[in-house]
Amino acid sequence: MSTSAQIGVTGLAVMGRNLARNFARNGYTVAVHNRTVSRTQALMNEFGDEGDFIAAESAKEFVAALERPRRLVIMVKAGGPTDAVIHEFSPLLESGDMIIDGGNAHFEDTRRREKELRDRGIHFVGTGISGGEEGALHGPSIMPGGSPESYASLGPMLEKISAKAPDGAPCVTHVGPDGAGHFVKMVHNGIEYADMQLIAEAYQLLRDVAGYSPAQIADIFRTWNQGRLDSYLIEITAEVLSHKDVMTDQPFVDVVQDQAEQKGTGRWTVQIALDLGVPVSGIAEAVFARSLSGHTDLRRAARGLAGPKPQPLDRTEAGRFADQVEQALYASKIVSYTQGFHEIAAGSQEYGWDIDLGAIASIWRGGCIIRAAFLDRIRTAYGARPDLPSLLADHGFAREIGSAQDDWRAVLVAATQQGVPTPGFSAALAYYDALRAERLPAALTQGQRDFFGAHTYRRTDREGSFHTRWGGDRSEIPA
Amino acid sequence: MSTSAQIGVTGLAVMGRNLARNFARNGYTVAVHNRTVSRTQALMNEFGDEGDFIAAESAKEFVAALERPRRLVIMVKAGGPTDAVIHEFSPLLESGDMIIDGGNAHFEDTRRREKELRDRGIHFVGTGISGGEEGALHGPSIMPGGSPESYASLGPMLEKISAKAPDGAPCVTHVGPDGAGHFVKMVHNGIEYADMQLIAEAYQLLRDVAGYSPAQIADIFRTWNQGRLDSYLIEITAEVLSHKDVMTDQPFVDVVQDQAEQKGTGRWTVQIALDLGVPVSGIAEAVFARSLSGHTDLRRAARGLAGPKPQPLDRTEAGRFADQVEQALYASKIVSYTQGFHEIAAGSQEYGWDIDLGAIASIWRGGCIIRAAFLDRIRTAYGARPDLPSLLADHGFAREIGSAQDDWRAVLVAATQQGVPTPGFSAALAYYDALRAERLPAALTQGQRDFFGAHTYRRTDREGSFHTRWGGDRSEIPA
Repeated sequence: MSTSAQIGVTGLAVMGRNLARNFARNGYTVAVHNRTVSRTQALMNEFGDEGDFIAAESAKEFVAALERPRRLVIMVKAGGPTDAVIHEFSPLLESGDMIIDGGNAHFEDTRRREKELRDRGIHFVGTGISGGEEGALHGPSIMPGGSPESYASLGPMLEKISAKAPDGAPCVTHVGPDGAGHFVKMVHNGIEYADMQLIAEAYQLLRDVAGYSPAQIADIFRTWNQGRLDSYLIEITAEVLSHKDVMTDQPFVDVVQDQAEQKGTGRWTVQIALDLGVPVSGIAEAVFARSLSGHTDLRRAARGLAGPKPQPLDRTEAGRFADQVEQALYASKIVSYTQGFHEIAAGSQEYGWDIDLGAIASIWRGGCIIRAAFLDRIRTAYGARPDLPSLLADHGFAREIGSAQDDWRAVLVAATQQGVPTPGFSAALAYYDALRAERLPAALTQGQRDFFGAHTYRRTDREGSFHTRWGGDRSEIPA
Repeated sequence: MSTSAQIGVTGLAVMGRNLARNFARNGYTVAVHNRTVSRTQALMNEFGDEGDFIAAESAKEFVAALERPRRLVIMVKAGGPTDAVIHEFSPLLESGDMIIDGGNAHFEDTRRREKELRDRGIHFVGTGISGGEEGALHGPSIMPGGSPESYASLGPMLEKISAKAPDGAPCVTHVGPDGAGHFVKMVHNGIEYADMQLIAEAYQLLRDVAGYSPAQIADIFRTWNQGRLDSYLIEITAEVLSHKDVMTDQPFVDVVQDQAEQKGTGRWTVQIALDLGVPVSGIAEAVFARSLSGHTDLRRAARGLAGPKPQPLDRTEAGRFADQVEQALYASKIVSYTQGFHEIAAGSQEYGWDIDLGAIASIWRGGCIIRAAFLDRIRTAYGARPDLPSLLADHGFAREIGSAQDDWRAVLVAATQQGVPTPGFSAALAYYDALRAERLPAALTQGQRDFFGAHTYRRTDREGSFHTRWGGDRSEIPA
């Protein structure tokens, strides 16, 4: 057996298989391995002539097929299976070798694994990969963490197989040390949840308030996709909405059960944001909206609750309303990304990753689920001012959201009056209005906390912490 | 040294000291112990004549002072300090003895500790205690977990020292096994966050939209406190708002910095709800509102963002608006409690705790921060129908929220148009409207997920999971 493979992939389910084919198509010799050998054989039979593959039956054979320093990609389920594979392969590796984990690992697991392997001289590269099966095959967005040395060796290969942004830039960058790659992938998915929820609310408003059919709404999304909302998710929304169910000839969206499922990354994004003290209300509402939709018992029990019935608008009003919904969707989207990038910035600071936020926006421009023209705007904003404290502090975004806000408010007024749930739009506006508020009622909250728990407060006019003797003469004492 | 103490308290900071005094005042002999002996002496010097105390200098002395089976209350910081104290005392205990942890432990820690100690025959009783210093001294709401045997021994003592509800019932019940008590205390605090945020929003609306002064708003809260909103938090809101800063003669609320702080339990409530798949959007918005208020850099950067300036109403309109805010606050409060009790029900099911939700409402009627007349309504609702799938399924609450909803919507329309942030009110209404919706756009979300990730979907008209060949002929196949 030759030792000529530049890269190896173990775990040949659809993502691993497609990634291996992507490497091969780009001219690399790829060692392939799977616990169940039949899967390796299937890849060789079906796609073996697409490039140079070396099929390895055993872990030992697999490792032996790799040139040094070895680059070994594991594409197995996150959690226990990933640990099992690391445990199996790492004793066969030498100092300087690299293990690339391309699964959706929790970044804390990645941090632990990276540290354990670093102590043994092995580079562990926790790598977010977005784009699904198609992306893995034709070019995903790739978010590798790990050491700079590992990126020096892996980077050129990843740049080759990655998606390319419209300006030709490869959609991969060295995100930062240890768990940075998986952290950023997690937030990517959280933003994806928020994007999808906002689109879902826009759809429901166009359906219930404007009175459009799914096919008409598909056309509206197609139009939006020509403008500043140009993105993969808007594009496929139009596809889904225009699709007719073959069996019933009804709009497809009307025959699908309205219970959205989820895996872990959206939830993680919110949980970690809570630990970091970052408000990500838009992402949280998106996660909650999915879980609410699945509580059929509660929904059944609530079916009789009082509320308005939407009264569809006439044709002229509907057209105007659709334009307003576009403004509301765009403004809410700016808030979602503001919150997501705030979380990345906070994670970067907490863990010392030194993440280049503009570079993250850049590599999300292609390959991944949230790819959008919009991300080029974010790249530009951080490029002009890398220390931007918030996307809303960028003059361009501030101007756009400012000019959208009248329509945004009008849409929320209609939703509120007509009883259409818009948790994402509402959370985004509340975030916007809270952030720009001169005074927040948090002062009252602090007063209450001091009253019942002696938690003290600070004053606007002098330094230090204070406590009022609420139960006594209500004098103030330094705390 | 006598061995006549029915109970011992170690950790004599203000909470522990007050709890020990409460036991003594109720006729129990109380052994008291603190790592730093001076604190024990201080208690004896200041309060020693309030009842029968036995001051113990060493752990051994402390344990020796307790009658068997021993009841040992630890009142130290949650986390490491709690483990340290358990580690110190448990070797001195015998089978059948009880350790009561009265701190704000994470229920997962309590589960772990309970299991470890159970293996050694010791009952570990993770106990939520709410009511702050005053409550600890005069009667808190007490939420003990742990074994039924431990409650048989401890229950009568806890009933004596606990707060009493207006109908005389003691504010303590055996919540359920292992971590159930700390879990329920955690959710109590989450609901407290939501209550405080809703009050804060009501205040801001009365200030900015109605144009009332803090003193006038205090009067409004006093009036509300005579009605269905009757509660400790409404009462102290009036106290805080009517308070004038001694130094400046300004309204106190105007000289306090508007940055709300927080400890861990609100955040935990949301994180655990996410794990359990329970939408607790009202609690989440409350936690986020606090963290947002503290991001002074972001707030400074957002200060120039465009938005409406509230136009205060005239006197007649303002009075009408205040009534509407009361409706909005009450409706949103029903939603907060619906979400909180849903989380308790879900936790109970997940961990096999068999929690009596009506009993929880009952013991929150006195002693704790969220004590309110309202909780008696919840007790009655669950009493009438223990399997109530949601508080909103109770006919009384459904009727009330139904008749509040027009005003609730009117308030949100005003807030939206005038740019006053109301994340809590908005999240509550979105939850209400989503739960009662016949169809949710989650169907579109499922369609998108199937499009980009082949995640499959279910149909409304037949069993099974399906996938559409989006990239191919768009036929449907069983998954």
